[in-house]
Amino acid sequence: MRGGSFAERIKRSSVEHSSILVLALDIRGLPPSRLLRTAQRLLARVSTSLCAVKIGYQLLLPLDLTDSVRRIVKQAHDSNLQTIADLKLNDIASTNLVAAGALWSVGFDSVIANPFVGFEGGLGPVLTDAHDRNRGVLLLVHMSHPGAAEGYGLVLSRPRQAIYKLFLQRALDWQADGVIVGATSPDVISEAARFLRGRIPIFAPGVGAQRGDAMSAVEAGADFIIVGRSIVSASDPLSAAERIRLETWRGQRRGG
Amino acid sequence: MRGGSFAERIKRSSVEHSSILVLALDIRGLPPSRLLRTAQRLLARVSTSLCAVKIGYQLLLPLDLTDSVRRIVKQAHDSNLQTIADLKLNDIASTNLVAAGALWSVGFDSVIANPFVGFEGGLGPVLTDAHDRNRGVLLLVHMSHPGAAEGYGLVLSRPRQAIYKLFLQRALDWQADGVIVGATSPDVISEAARFLRGRIPIFAPGVGAQRGDAMSAVEAGADFIIVGRSIVSASDPLSAAERIRLETWRGQRRGG
Repeated sequence: MRGGSFAERIKRSSVEHSSILVLALDIRGLPPSRLLRTAQRLLARVSTSLCAVKIGYQLLLPLDLTDSVRRIVKQAHDSNLQTIADLKLNDIASTNLVAAGALWSVGFDSVIANPFVGFEGGLGPVLTDAHDRNRGVLLLVHMSHPGAAEGYGLVLSRPRQAIYKLFLQRALDWQADGVIVGATSPDVISEAARFLRGRIPIFAPGVGAQRGDAMSAVEAGADFIIVGRSIVSASDPLSAAERIRLETWRGQRRGG
Repeated sequence: MRGGSFAERIKRSSVEHSSILVLALDIRGLPPSRLLRTAQRLLARVSTSLCAVKIGYQLLLPLDLTDSVRRIVKQAHDSNLQTIADLKLNDIASTNLVAAGALWSVGFDSVIANPFVGFEGGLGPVLTDAHDRNRGVLLLVHMSHPGAAEGYGLVLSRPRQAIYKLFLQRALDWQADGVIVGATSPDVISEAARFLRGRIPIFAPGVGAQRGDAMSAVEAGADFIIVGRSIVSASDPLSAAERIRLETWRGQRRGG
């Protein structure tokens, strides 16, 4: 895990690898017996292009945590990459703490959670516990799929604003370690960047298969780009990853 | 799994066991090596008092799905109990489908999801796929923790209503197989019962440790009561389960 907060560690990995690219290590369509090895091979192949790895249900559900998943986390750390567990936590605190505790115990650096569940008896205790252990909690602010507006885009009555704006405020108030805004909504990324003014990094998923454009997301102010299928399903994952790494790294340097 | 829809199957298990009690099989504080056996023992001990078992992160994360979790699901089915996987799914469709598919492959009868994520490219494909396989999707309408109102209770601008009312409408429109309303909000249960008029069963968690009252929930119109800690942590789990089973079963007979 190395020292510092999650935000400091991923910044360091980013500079070290000249990369703002987070790989969503979403392997599908394989029996559990072949999942671990395929994930490990893919990670080994592209690790030099990344700053972090995101691991979700695709691996967390079928694989056992304390052996197989721990190995993948260790492999990421051995390559100086940060790790993000993607459960989109939105349960009561006692359950969230058990889930997060299990993730911390195998070395994860951060977890993604949904601020919709609230602070009191929801995510509050998870944030406190995570920070006590130098881990991070990334909050969903807007997602990348067509139906994202059916939730994140709902307009509240008082004050009259979209829910994602309330979630941006929560990210600040709750001292979140990152926010997730889908690359399919570059205007929301711009808004988040103006609102957060660099205090919390913005992660943009949904690039490629979900039709989000990496460069538009970077130009709008995304600090990190999360890519899954465009790398995982590529005939040459390394060159796919390298292309995105170079383009977005240069794009961000220009922007900064 | 036996025949019929999830709603029909749980109704049948309920009549067969004279029980509307769903056990939240949330074992905590044990190393993974002891988790499976403890869960199996507890389930064996109280199975005659139940109609279903809910399995969440407490077991799904540390245990491997295809061996250990599959055994627990099979044990539940051998006792004629229905099974509910509690991931509070709120991801993009492609990920939700992988997660649900993994759950269906080990025999789960239903999964809990958060309608906040929306239908298009969110839960729509999961509902279709679940129904094709005679599985159920239960939608969160209101939760049981203190911060639940920070999300489910937010007031929308047009029409001016709390989000949980929109979620009730979604449950009908999306043909959900159940809704979850925390026992800590009996007024929301009443509202849900009036709105749904028996078309979709209401599940009420948060009884006991979370201070929800089982009888108030039943009187308000809950069809099923979900209880975890009050049974799992009891010195005599069977008598704790029996007490809740009898009280709520009689209460519901009186109400109906």
